[in-house]
Amino acid sequence: MGLLSEGLTQLLIPLAALVGLAFALLQWFLVSRVKVSGSYGEGNGYKDKLIGEAEEGVDSLEVTIKVAEIQNAISIGATSFLFTQYRYLSIFVGVFSAIIFLFLGSVKGFSTKSEPCTYNTGNTCKPALANALFTTIAFLLGALTSVLSGFFGMKIATYANARTTLEARRGVGKAFITAFRSGAVMGFLLAANGLLVLYITINLFKLYYGDDWEGLYESITGYGLGGSSMALFGRVGGGIYTKAADVGADLVGKVERNIPEDDPRNPAVIADNVGDNVGDIAGMGSDLFGSYAESSCAALFVASISSFGISHDYTAMSYPLIISSMGIVVCLITTLFATDLFEIKKVNEIEPSLKRQLLISTVLMTAGIAAVTFVALPSEFTLFSFGTNKAVKNWYLFFCVAIGLWAGLVIGYTTEYYTSNAYSPVQDVADSCRTGAATNVIFGLALGYKSVIIPVFAIAFAIYVSFSLAAMYGIAVAALGMLSTISTGLAIDAYGPISDNAGGIAEMAGMSHEIRERTDALDAAGNTTAAIGKGFAIGSAALVSLALFGAYVSRAGIETVDVLTPKVFIGLLVGAMLPYWFSAMTMKSVGSAALKMVEEVRRQFNTIPGLMEGTAKPDYATCVKISTDASLKEMIPPGALVMLTPLIAGTFFGVETLAGILAGSLVSGVQIAISASNTGGAWDNAKKYIEAGASEHAKSLGPKGSDPHKAAVIGDTIGDPLKDTSGPSLNILIKLMAVESLVFAPFFAAHGGVLFKWL
Amino acid sequence: MGLLSEGLTQLLIPLAALVGLAFALLQWFLVSRVKVSGSYGEGNGYKDKLIGEAEEGVDSLEVTIKVAEIQNAISIGATSFLFTQYRYLSIFVGVFSAIIFLFLGSVKGFSTKSEPCTYNTGNTCKPALANALFTTIAFLLGALTSVLSGFFGMKIATYANARTTLEARRGVGKAFITAFRSGAVMGFLLAANGLLVLYITINLFKLYYGDDWEGLYESITGYGLGGSSMALFGRVGGGIYTKAADVGADLVGKVERNIPEDDPRNPAVIADNVGDNVGDIAGMGSDLFGSYAESSCAALFVASISSFGISHDYTAMSYPLIISSMGIVVCLITTLFATDLFEIKKVNEIEPSLKRQLLISTVLMTAGIAAVTFVALPSEFTLFSFGTNKAVKNWYLFFCVAIGLWAGLVIGYTTEYYTSNAYSPVQDVADSCRTGAATNVIFGLALGYKSVIIPVFAIAFAIYVSFSLAAMYGIAVAALGMLSTISTGLAIDAYGPISDNAGGIAEMAGMSHEIRERTDALDAAGNTTAAIGKGFAIGSAALVSLALFGAYVSRAGIETVDVLTPKVFIGLLVGAMLPYWFSAMTMKSVGSAALKMVEEVRRQFNTIPGLMEGTAKPDYATCVKISTDASLKEMIPPGALVMLTPLIAGTFFGVETLAGILAGSLVSGVQIAISASNTGGAWDNAKKYIEAGASEHAKSLGPKGSDPHKAAVIGDTIGDPLKDTSGPSLNILIKLMAVESLVFAPFFAAHGGVLFKWL
Repeated sequence: MGLLSEGLTQLLIPLAALVGLAFALLQWFLVSRVKVSGSYGEGNGYKDKLIGEAEEGVDSLEVTIKVAEIQNAISIGATSFLFTQYRYLSIFVGVFSAIIFLFLGSVKGFSTKSEPCTYNTGNTCKPALANALFTTIAFLLGALTSVLSGFFGMKIATYANARTTLEARRGVGKAFITAFRSGAVMGFLLAANGLLVLYITINLFKLYYGDDWEGLYESITGYGLGGSSMALFGRVGGGIYTKAADVGADLVGKVERNIPEDDPRNPAVIADNVGDNVGDIAGMGSDLFGSYAESSCAALFVASISSFGISHDYTAMSYPLIISSMGIVVCLITTLFATDLFEIKKVNEIEPSLKRQLLISTVLMTAGIAAVTFVALPSEFTLFSFGTNKAVKNWYLFFCVAIGLWAGLVIGYTTEYYTSNAYSPVQDVADSCRTGAATNVIFGLALGYKSVIIPVFAIAFAIYVSFSLAAMYGIAVAALGMLSTISTGLAIDAYGPISDNAGGIAEMAGMSHEIRERTDALDAAGNTTAAIGKGFAIGSAALVSLALFGAYVSRAGIETVDVLTPKVFIGLLVGAMLPYWFSAMTMKSVGSAALKMVEEVRRQFNTIPGLMEGTAKPDYATCVKISTDASLKEMIPPGALVMLTPLIAGTFFGVETLAGILAGSLVSGVQIAISASNTGGAWDNAKKYIEAGASEHAKSLGPKGSDPHKAAVIGDTIGDPLKDTSGPSLNILIKLMAVESLVFAPFFAAHGGVLFKWL
Repeated sequence: MGLLSEGLTQLLIPLAALVGLAFALLQWFLVSRVKVSGSYGEGNGYKDKLIGEAEEGVDSLEVTIKVAEIQNAISIGATSFLFTQYRYLSIFVGVFSAIIFLFLGSVKGFSTKSEPCTYNTGNTCKPALANALFTTIAFLLGALTSVLSGFFGMKIATYANARTTLEARRGVGKAFITAFRSGAVMGFLLAANGLLVLYITINLFKLYYGDDWEGLYESITGYGLGGSSMALFGRVGGGIYTKAADVGADLVGKVERNIPEDDPRNPAVIADNVGDNVGDIAGMGSDLFGSYAESSCAALFVASISSFGISHDYTAMSYPLIISSMGIVVCLITTLFATDLFEIKKVNEIEPSLKRQLLISTVLMTAGIAAVTFVALPSEFTLFSFGTNKAVKNWYLFFCVAIGLWAGLVIGYTTEYYTSNAYSPVQDVADSCRTGAATNVIFGLALGYKSVIIPVFAIAFAIYVSFSLAAMYGIAVAALGMLSTISTGLAIDAYGPISDNAGGIAEMAGMSHEIRERTDALDAAGNTTAAIGKGFAIGSAALVSLALFGAYVSRAGIETVDVLTPKVFIGLLVGAMLPYWFSAMTMKSVGSAALKMVEEVRRQFNTIPGLMEGTAKPDYATCVKISTDASLKEMIPPGALVMLTPLIAGTFFGVETLAGILAGSLVSGVQIAISASNTGGAWDNAKKYIEAGASEHAKSLGPKGSDPHKAAVIGDTIGDPLKDTSGPSLNILIKLMAVESLVFAPFFAAHGGVLFKWL
C-alpha cells in the first residue's frame, strides 16, 4: 500500500475539484468586473447594466451600446443553436442508451443471477444485466457532463468577448488578461467538473457494486462513451456551422465585395461569430472533456483487473483521479504567472507569455507527478497485460505519466513552429503566394504533411516507453499525463476564439483602428494557440485511443492482434480508410453549406438597397438559419459512420476485425488530423503575416488586396474546414470508436462475428 | 503433378514472351508507316524522311516540318534527361549493389560453406555468400530491365506523338489508333521483356543452384528490388521534372499572360512536353514493371518454401510465370478489338472503347486463368503459411487470381467514375468553381477522399478471400492476376500522355483549330485512362506489398506481427506517417522547382523583345535545364527516405518494428495515393469540362478565361503534383520498402535490432 490512506484520498480528490471550481468562479468574477452597457438586460442574463469604467475617450457611448448589442446577438445566436442541437442530441442519447442496455443486457440473456468474475477468479461478480444498467447510467452522466462543459464554455466565451473588446481600449495587456481569464474559467470548470462527476459516480456506483470492482469500473467506461459521443456531434455540428458561415462570409465579403473581415454590412457576420463559440469553444470543450473522461476510464478499467483492483487498494486504484487533482492545483499556480505575476505591455509579448504557460505547467506538473506517484502507489504491484501479469515498480509509472506530459509539450511547440508566422515554414508559405493561390496550396499542403513527423515520433516514443514500462496501463496514464495540464491548455486554447470574437465585435461596432490593431494582435497569437490546442487534442487522442484499444482487447479476451491474419489485416486497411471517408463527408458538408451561404449573402447584397453603403441593415437571421440547418442535417451521416462502424464490424465481423479497424483508424487518423489542422493554421497565419506587414518581406507581399494577399485569402478559406471541421473531428473519430468498442466488448465477445461464423 | 509437363512449360513461357515481343514490333511497324517529315534525320534515329502520305490539305508542308522539328526537340530532351538520370542512377546502383552484397554476405560471416536448408529440412543448401552474390546479380538485372522498360516506352512515345498529331488530320479514328498502337508497343514490350528476363535469369541461376530452390528463389527477389528501386527514382525524378515544367508553364502562360496551353511562345513548353514522356511514360513503365517483377518474386519465393519447391514440381513452381504468359496472349487478342475489330468514328466513342478494353481483357483472362490453373497445378498441394503448412486445392488458386483481376476492374471503373467529366462527381467540382478556387479545392479534396472507399473495400475483399484460400501465396497470385492484363492496362495508360503530347505538338505547330479539337478529345479520354492506370498501379501495389510483406515475415522467421506489442505498434504508427513525410518532400520539391521555372519564364517574357508577339523564339533550353537540375537534385532526399528506412529500422529496431512499419505505410499509403491521384485527375477534367462546354451546364461556367475557368485552372495546377508526383510515387514507397525488407530479411533476422538488444 502507498503512503496515502483511503480516507485522505476520499477527501483530497473532491477538495481539488472544489478548489478548481472556486478558482473558475473567481476568474469569472474578475472578468465580470468589466462592465458592458447597453439597452439589453435580458437574454444574456448577467444583468450588467449601464456604462462601464472610465475609458480613454477613444470611443463614444454609442459605440459601447453597439458592442453590447452585438454581444447580445452573438450570445443569443449561440445559445439558441446549442439548444436546438441538444434537442437532436437528446433523441440520439435516448436511442443509444436503449442500444447499450439491450446489447449489454443480452450478453447473458438478461439474467439477473450473479456470475463468477472474469479476472478476479474465485469471486462472484454482479450480473451482466446490472453492468448494462449502470453502463447506461454512466453514459447518460458522461453525455450530460460533456454538454455542460461545452455549454458553460460557450457562455463564458460569449460573456467575455465584448469585455475583451472594451478592455482593449485600456491597452493590450488588459484585454489579454480578460481573454485569458475567461479561457481559464472554461479550463478549470471543465477539469474540475469532469473530475467531480466521475468521483461522485464511482462512489455512488460502489454502493451497489461493493467489492465487485471489475463490474464497477467496466460500467464506468460508459462515462467516457457518453462524453465522447456528445463531443462528436459538438465538433462536427459546430465545425460545419462555423465554417459554413466563415467561408460563405469570406467568399462574398472579402473576395467579391472587397469589404474587411467582420464588416457589419456582411449578412453572414453574426453567424460567423456565433460559429466561433459553438465550434471552437463548445466543440473543443466537449472534445477535451471526452479525452479526459476516456483516458481516466481506460486507466481505471485496466487497474481494476490488475493488482490494485484485485487487492482492493482504493488509493492506488484512484491514481488517475489523483493525477488530475494534482493537475488542477498545478494549473492554478501556472495561471497566476499569466494573470498576476507578469504583465503584458507590448503586442509581441503575447505569444511568448502563452508559450510560457505551457512550459511552466509542464515543469511544475513533473514535480507534481513525482509527488503523487510516490505517496499514492505501493512500491511494487502487478498490472494486467493481455492475459499475463506484469510486475511494475511505482517509479515506472512516474516515467509513464511524465513522458506523456512532455510529449504534449513537444507536440505543442512543434505545432507552434509550423503554424506561427514568426518562423520560416509559414513565411515560406506566405512567400509562395507571390505566384498565386496554386503554389500557396501546394506549399501549405506540404507544410501540413511535414508537420506530422515530429509529433508522430514524440507519440511513438511515449508509447514505446510507457508500454514497455507498464503495458496498457502505462499508455492510459501517459494520456492522463498529457491531459493533466488540461486547464492551462484549454485556457490558452479558448483564449483564441474569444480574441477572434473580440476583434469581430470591435470591427462591427466601428471602433477605432487602434483598438482593432490590438485585437488583431491578440487574435494572431490565438490562431497559433488554437493550433497548439488542436495538437494537444490529437496527441492525447492518440494515446487515449491506444489505451482504450488495449482495454477493449483485454475486455474482449483477445490475446494477439496479428496483422498476419486476414481478419485483422482487412480491418487495418478499412480502418485506415475511415478517416478519409469521414473527412470527405465533413468537407463536402462545409462546401455545400458555404455555397448556400454565398447565394444568400449575394442575394442580400443584390436585393437590399443601401446595404453596401451601410445605410440598411442586413438580415443576419437568415444566415444564422442556413448555418444551423446545414450543421444539424449534415452532422448525421458522419456521426452515423463513427457510431455504427464498431457496432457493425463487431457484430458481423467479430472482435479481431474490429481490433484491426481501431488500430488502422488510429494510425491513419492521427496523421490526417495533425496535417489538416496545421495546414489550416499555417494558411490563416500566412494571410495574417501579409496583412500585418511587420517585416520587409511581409511588406513586399502586401498590402491587403494585393495579388499575393488574394492568393493567401484563398488558402485561408480552404484551410477553414480542414482546421476547424474535418481535422479536429478526427480525434473524436478515433477515440469514440475505441471507447464504443470497449463498452460493447462483452457483447461482441459473446455474440459477435456472425458473418465469419456463418461462413 | 499437373497436366502440363516440365518440358512444355519450358517451351511455352519463352514462346509467349517472344510472341509478345513480336506483336510489339508489329505495332511499332504499323505506327512507323505514318511518315513524319522534316529537315532532321539524326538525333531521332528512325530515318523517316520527307513528306508523309496524302493529307486532306488542312495543313501546309511548313506545318509538317514544324511538327517534325518539335518532335525532334522533345525526343532529344527526353533522351538526354534520361541519360543524365541514368548516370546518377548508376552510382546508386553501384553503391547499393555493394550494400546488398556486404549485408547479405555477412549473414554467415562470408562463409563459403554449404548450410542446412531452412525450410527443406534435412537437405543441404548453398552458402549465404552465394545468395548474396546472386541476389546482387538479380538486383542488377532487375534495375537494367526496369530502365529499359522506361526507356523504350519513352522512345516509342516520343516517336508516336507527332505521328498521332499528323494522323489527326485524317480523322479522330486514325489518330486514336496510332496513339493506342504506340501504347500497346510499350505494354507488350514491357510485359514480354519482364517475363523473358525473369525466365532466363531463373534458368541461368538454376545451373548453379541445382536442387537448392530455396536459395534460388531467395536470390531472385533481388530482381524485384532492382526493378522497383529504379522505378522510385524514375517516378520521383520524372514526376518532379514534368510537374515543375507544367506548373511553371501554366502559372505564367495561362494565368498571367493569358496564352493557351502548349503555346510555342511559352519558354517552358518543351520542358512540359518532355516531362510527359519522362514522368508519365518512363516513370509509369518502370513502376508497373516493378509491381510485376515484385509480385512474381513474392509468389515464387513463397512457392519455393511450399510443397511446389520442396517436391521440385517445376511447372507448379512456374505458375506465376504461366499466368503472365497467358496474360500476354489474352491482351494480344484484346488489342485487336480496339485496333482492328471496331473503328472509332466519333469523339465520344473514344472513352467507351478504352473502357471496353478493360472489360474484354478481364473477361478473357478469367477463362485463361481457369485454363492455366487446371493444367499447371496438381489438384492438391500444401502452401507455407507462417510456420505451418496449409492444404490447398488447385481451384482455390483460380479464385485467388481471378479475384485480383476483377478487383482491378472494380478499381479501374471506380476511378473512371470519380475522374471522368461524364459523371456527377467531376461536374460537381466544376460547378463549385462558380464561387472561386477555394470551394473548388475543398470539393476536389473531398472527392479524392471519397474515391478511396470502394477501391479499399475491393482490395480488402480480394485480400480476405485470397488470404483465406491460399495464405500469402494467394495474395501474391491475386496481385499477379490484377497485373496479368498489364499489356492492355499500359496500352490505355500510355495512350494518355501520347495524346497529350500530340495536342501540344498541334498547338505548337500552329495547326488548325479542327485538329486541335480532335487531339483535345483524345487527351480528355487520356486523362481518365491515366487515372485508371494509376488506380491499377496503386491497387496492385497494395496487393504486391502485402505479398512481399508476407514473404518478408516468412523469411525473417516472425510468427506473429502483434499490434499489441510496443515494438510493432510504434512501427505501425511511424509507418503510417512515412507517406506524409514523403509527400511533403515531393510536393515541396515540385513547388520550389515551379517557382524557379516561373521566374525564368517571366524573365524571358520580360527581357526577350517580340516574344509575346511571336516574332522571337524563347530559350527553351534554360527551362529544360531547370527541370532537369531540380528533378535530379530533389529526387535524392525522398529516395533516401524510402531506401534507408528499412535498413535503419531493421538494423536498429529489428524485424518486428520493421514489420509494423511496412504494415503501417501500406495501409496509410494506399489511401493517400488513391485520393491524391483522383483529386488531381478530377480537377484536370473539371477544367477540361468547362473548356469543352459540351453541355448547358458546362457552357454556363465557361468560356475559357471566365472566373469559374480561372478557379478551375488553379485546381488543375494544385492537382498536378498530387496526381503525377506524390500520389503515384507512393505506390513505389510501399512496394519498395517491402521488397527491400524481404531481400535484407536474412541479415535483419541474424543481426538486426541492435538498439533494443542493447537496451
